[in-house]
Amino acid sequence: MEKLIVDLAERSYPIYIGQQLIDQLEYYQPHIDGQQVLIVTNDTVAPLYLEQVKQTLADHYQVAEVILPDGEQYKNLVTVEKVYDALLTNKFNRTVTLVALGGGVIGDITGFAAATYQRGVNFIQVPTTLLAQVDSSVGGKTGVNHPQGKNMIGAFYQPKCVIADTTTLNTLPSRELSAGIAEVIKYGLISDKPFFDWLTENIDSLVSRNSDNLSYAILRSCENKAWVVAQDEKEGGIRAILNLGHTFGHAIENYMGYGKWLHGEAVAAGMVQAADLSCRIGWIAASEVLEIQSLLKQANLPIKPPKEMSCNDYLELMAVDKKVIDGQLRLVLLESIGKAIVTADFDRQLLLDTLS
Amino acid sequence: MEKLIVDLAERSYPIYIGQQLIDQLEYYQPHIDGQQVLIVTNDTVAPLYLEQVKQTLADHYQVAEVILPDGEQYKNLVTVEKVYDALLTNKFNRTVTLVALGGGVIGDITGFAAATYQRGVNFIQVPTTLLAQVDSSVGGKTGVNHPQGKNMIGAFYQPKCVIADTTTLNTLPSRELSAGIAEVIKYGLISDKPFFDWLTENIDSLVSRNSDNLSYAILRSCENKAWVVAQDEKEGGIRAILNLGHTFGHAIENYMGYGKWLHGEAVAAGMVQAADLSCRIGWIAASEVLEIQSLLKQANLPIKPPKEMSCNDYLELMAVDKKVIDGQLRLVLLESIGKAIVTADFDRQLLLDTLS
Repeated sequence: MEKLIVDLAERSYPIYIGQQLIDQLEYYQPHIDGQQVLIVTNDTVAPLYLEQVKQTLADHYQVAEVILPDGEQYKNLVTVEKVYDALLTNKFNRTVTLVALGGGVIGDITGFAAATYQRGVNFIQVPTTLLAQVDSSVGGKTGVNHPQGKNMIGAFYQPKCVIADTTTLNTLPSRELSAGIAEVIKYGLISDKPFFDWLTENIDSLVSRNSDNLSYAILRSCENKAWVVAQDEKEGGIRAILNLGHTFGHAIENYMGYGKWLHGEAVAAGMVQAADLSCRIGWIAASEVLEIQSLLKQANLPIKPPKEMSCNDYLELMAVDKKVIDGQLRLVLLESIGKAIVTADFDRQLLLDTLS
Repeated sequence: MEKLIVDLAERSYPIYIGQQLIDQLEYYQPHIDGQQVLIVTNDTVAPLYLEQVKQTLADHYQVAEVILPDGEQYKNLVTVEKVYDALLTNKFNRTVTLVALGGGVIGDITGFAAATYQRGVNFIQVPTTLLAQVDSSVGGKTGVNHPQGKNMIGAFYQPKCVIADTTTLNTLPSRELSAGIAEVIKYGLISDKPFFDWLTENIDSLVSRNSDNLSYAILRSCENKAWVVAQDEKEGGIRAILNLGHTFGHAIENYMGYGKWLHGEAVAAGMVQAADLSCRIGWIAASEVLEIQSLLKQANLPIKPPKEMSCNDYLELMAVDKKVIDGQLRLVLLESIGKAIVTADFDRQLLLDTLS
């Protein structure tokens, strides 16, 4: 078991990474203050892991559960209300601890419910997808979508701990594993060239679920993310580099309808667009764009956006991106592989060229 | 104009109290960072003050508005969504400043929308009721009701400044003025005996809207509240004394249906219940309970709870109070006039006696 501390002063918390952790009481217990626990999970994960987690906690706490429908299309306020309903029906008070058992959507919804129930209660993340283990488990971004934009409603709110059990990845569909690898590759691209090189050499072993290499990739990804987040918890500046590929990717997800493209798939295509624009500006070489495309392709990820989207579709959808400041679109681009920056300083025509 | 600083380290902010402030740009300008402003108000306040505030800001900012239905019964997530909709329709980003123009409900909804839109944007409170000026303008409690309980969904989130314009009280219905005076009296009861005595002498002048005395009562109330909040921003301990009368009061509001009893009216009846229980325990004298009743009565406030509520109605509704910890009901009671404490240490039979 590896332990990584996300360093955020009084909001610091540990991430435990390893095999068969979710049924070990010792990882939960130090992070639960009261007597009440609500496990929040979905109808895909519940049959696989809910009983294990419940049994682990049931002797020590008053445990209840709420099972939400699975999918990004349910990441909205209506679903958050189901969590509030469960909390109130069980008469759970502000000493309750929420346990998010599932992927990124469950983590985001549960974190937001924890941030806003009785003005804030504790929560623990138990991410069961690679994407959630490397992405939403670090950084405290919680929230839900609005019909007019992704993640428009939310809060910065840190968990008490994260339990990333690599055993849970064995039941993950291949497409979702690949979507998680997209975010892993992102960390190499934005801030860690040696990790990018390691990924280029080891990508096949991740796709075939080599447990040790997955653990290493999760740890290294979380370290990279934790390093960025510790510098800029509320995304005033550098933290925005974590959104490489996301401005394009969110537009794709939004246009296609949530759930059609997985988040990681949209981000993969978006990272290629960001790399393409970075190349047009003259920052990275065309050969590097090909390297990135090749790595994503080996991970079975899309490297082209959906054919049906026009330039205008992108511009319209990207105008509500959270990185827009006073009407000015800013993008995360690559100065080199391993160094991303946030910039509004690009020729608009080059962006249009990338989009068409 | 009086200026009071609420001291919360990097979240400190000023409260401006005085006549004819809402059309003075100088009070807003230092607290607006970006170019975008959304005024959130309701259909009662909009005809009275919206144009003044809009005109004041329109030359300097891109100003939009959203007008919500008036009333506690609309303090819910559905109404918050109208604010999100307005923000997104105007393509307002995370540099937007929300201006809450109205009473406590508008302040609570707007604050919660500000806390959760794009994970947090700035907001300014312009309270137009006495209750909002003395209560919700200090302390950063934001949120909405859930069908199963009041203020169950929310966040601690501080405004950038509060502009408490006493001129706006001239248009306030008498019943709402009285409801505000209930909270003013509360500050005397919980932490300020000299202020309680001042109120006993000057209550008629407040009811008849003497402007100087109202300003003084607002300042003194805010000072008392700010002093409590500065010690305990997130209500881990002493801050709960601000809830004198509120556990009973919330039960009344909830039972009667939101909007039937004004919040301040329910709190007035609830404070009498708290005083009655404090007397039964032997902390305050029966004569002091009568003093409190007499003062509330002079302010045209109810001193008896609704006849139709039974003991069991209270116990059921109070069980979800946020001060309940692991099933144990805690109440704010009076050790003396001017000294409130939070305690679970009372004979349950005495509580039942008070309730019947």
